[in-house]
Amino acid sequence: MKAIAVERGSEGPAVIEKPRPEPEEGAALLRTLRVGVDGTDHEVIGGSHGGFPEGEDHMVLGHEAVAVVEDANGTDLDEGDVVVPTVRRPPADGSNEYFERGEPDMAPEGEYVERGIVGDHGYMAEYFTSPPEYLVPFPENLWEYGFFAEPVSITEKALEHAYASRSAFEWSPESALVLGNRSLGLITLAMLEFGVESDRSFADRDFDRTYCLGRRERPDPTVDVIEEIGATYVNSNETPLETVPETHEAMDFVYEATGYAPHAFETVEALAPNGVGALLGIPDSWEFEVDGGRIHNELVLHNKALVGTVNSHVKHFEGAIDALKELPEWLLEDLVTTVATPEDVAPAFEYGHDQIKAVVEFDSL
Amino acid sequence: MKAIAVERGSEGPAVIEKPRPEPEEGAALLRTLRVGVDGTDHEVIGGSHGGFPEGEDHMVLGHEAVAVVEDANGTDLDEGDVVVPTVRRPPADGSNEYFERGEPDMAPEGEYVERGIVGDHGYMAEYFTSPPEYLVPFPENLWEYGFFAEPVSITEKALEHAYASRSAFEWSPESALVLGNRSLGLITLAMLEFGVESDRSFADRDFDRTYCLGRRERPDPTVDVIEEIGATYVNSNETPLETVPETHEAMDFVYEATGYAPHAFETVEALAPNGVGALLGIPDSWEFEVDGGRIHNELVLHNKALVGTVNSHVKHFEGAIDALKELPEWLLEDLVTTVATPEDVAPAFEYGHDQIKAVVEFDSL
Repeated sequence: MKAIAVERGSEGPAVIEKPRPEPEEGAALLRTLRVGVDGTDHEVIGGSHGGFPEGEDHMVLGHEAVAVVEDANGTDLDEGDVVVPTVRRPPADGSNEYFERGEPDMAPEGEYVERGIVGDHGYMAEYFTSPPEYLVPFPENLWEYGFFAEPVSITEKALEHAYASRSAFEWSPESALVLGNRSLGLITLAMLEFGVESDRSFADRDFDRTYCLGRRERPDPTVDVIEEIGATYVNSNETPLETVPETHEAMDFVYEATGYAPHAFETVEALAPNGVGALLGIPDSWEFEVDGGRIHNELVLHNKALVGTVNSHVKHFEGAIDALKELPEWLLEDLVTTVATPEDVAPAFEYGHDQIKAVVEFDSL
Repeated sequence: MKAIAVERGSEGPAVIEKPRPEPEEGAALLRTLRVGVDGTDHEVIGGSHGGFPEGEDHMVLGHEAVAVVEDANGTDLDEGDVVVPTVRRPPADGSNEYFERGEPDMAPEGEYVERGIVGDHGYMAEYFTSPPEYLVPFPENLWEYGFFAEPVSITEKALEHAYASRSAFEWSPESALVLGNRSLGLITLAMLEFGVESDRSFADRDFDRTYCLGRRERPDPTVDVIEEIGATYVNSNETPLETVPETHEAMDFVYEATGYAPHAFETVEALAPNGVGALLGIPDSWEFEVDGGRIHNELVLHNKALVGTVNSHVKHFEGAIDALKELPEWLLEDLVTTVATPEDVAPAFEYGHDQIKAVVEFDSL
């Protein structure tokens, strides 16, 4: 079968031939439909994040997938079911408490592998295998957008943790600012603006005013999406983050998806009293000056919080799937700017001005 | 009556004569027993924090008090009841949503005054008045330590908010580090080490190992208290905060009560995965260099949180009173190093090497 992988010593992704995997006992065989490409994939390709499976000279990419059960192999799954796989799996030395209680996203480094990111092959292949507990049913009619379940689950988790941090008092957030206008930022912005939620979501989302900060100049397709969502675009070249309270308003909720380290600190100044900043970016070491006294003072005197979150678990995927059902289809359509095939994957890994979200399509329903 | 106040243009506290206050309708008259002195009082005296009541040339100090109902004045209180007053009151222009829902501690600046700190006279006088909703019943047999209810309520709130931030997943903290070995740090350390809690407390406290970081060299009375509590003293001159994970262990919970701004950032590195740092200090503006990339990365990849909290409300006082009942009396005795009188208050405002907690005693039961 065809797979898209990074190989030791080579630059960029390559299409390779691999044997179709045989599912072990307790695992199903999945036929891949679509796999999304995100910033983490680019970091993995560039070598700044993640790592090869032990003893292997390549790693199949891809952690945002939607697939069909090809061979249930004795599991409870039904052949033909559309599913989305979660990302974390137990490490080589076996399971641990985090996996056992369904919270692998809370496992510290070394206590997990991540498919397509660190220590395990990903989903960017015609077939993959997985135990059923890591597969979440996905609505067939939305199969083309199933790869969004993973990034949206990241937001579900961030919202859950951010709201939890505000659960000790009556919090009625009205304003939200998303930092970053790539696809994760845009889809999160839409979730906050449209207030998509269900019985399976973790946070009431009912923001009266939403904003998205980016550094792109108009005309720009992401700015068009932001405005079509009904949010306000904040150009960080004109309006640095820490000045947002003066130019717009102080924010009850800030969602950081840029990985730009100064944003973690400027977020504190952008927050309204009792606000919370959810941090999701993963920057490298970088020393710079901050007004640490002011940041510390602001956190305390105005009861602010910063919450870092990474990855997600099955319940977040379930919330994400409900959110995707509620989002307008024009948005999902607008976000997907490239559908590449294994025969010609290069366009899926380009960072063009008009690229928002690229996917590789292996098969269709 | 005698009162201890800061006066405009003068340095240091002064004993002044004021008329005994007449309680307005709906307020009781209280006879003051003891009032504690803390770092905030020193900041108020020094002019770096707080402010005078509008139109007044002096402010009576004191926000940590225990008193007796002298005149119930038609309220539900009983004369002779021992009570502790909370600190925040509605601003001059009237009440607001924060007071109405019993969460004045969440009010932003401008939407409250604080007795003895900003905009309103404090409790360091023979008598004061208060509406009953800001008075919390205190056990008579512990009256000598009633002034501790306010600082302990600050810790109750910090614990409530810190635990709330970890409520989205199964968190079983084992190790706690208190930054700062003044009286608030020491009493908090004891609360964490002894696991004092009740039906009215907001957090399970069951730390297996507790630590307290300070910059004092032995021999030192606070180090003696730390060790008598059963905690480990960490001398920051030998073991800077960010190296604590190597020298001791990474901490599930860090409680910052130093107001030393670098601690807010070093806390992130001192935390174990999934840990939370509660920030309580109120530093001034101060620019310095941080490895912002590493801090941001650590927050995200290890699901860490920083939660700033200030002040407290009635429920935190109730939890604090229960905690005080559980703390060993030797600890409370050891912490109170100075009991001054209005006739000779100077010793209560000295920062000697052997000073831990000073109080001014106006009357006794």
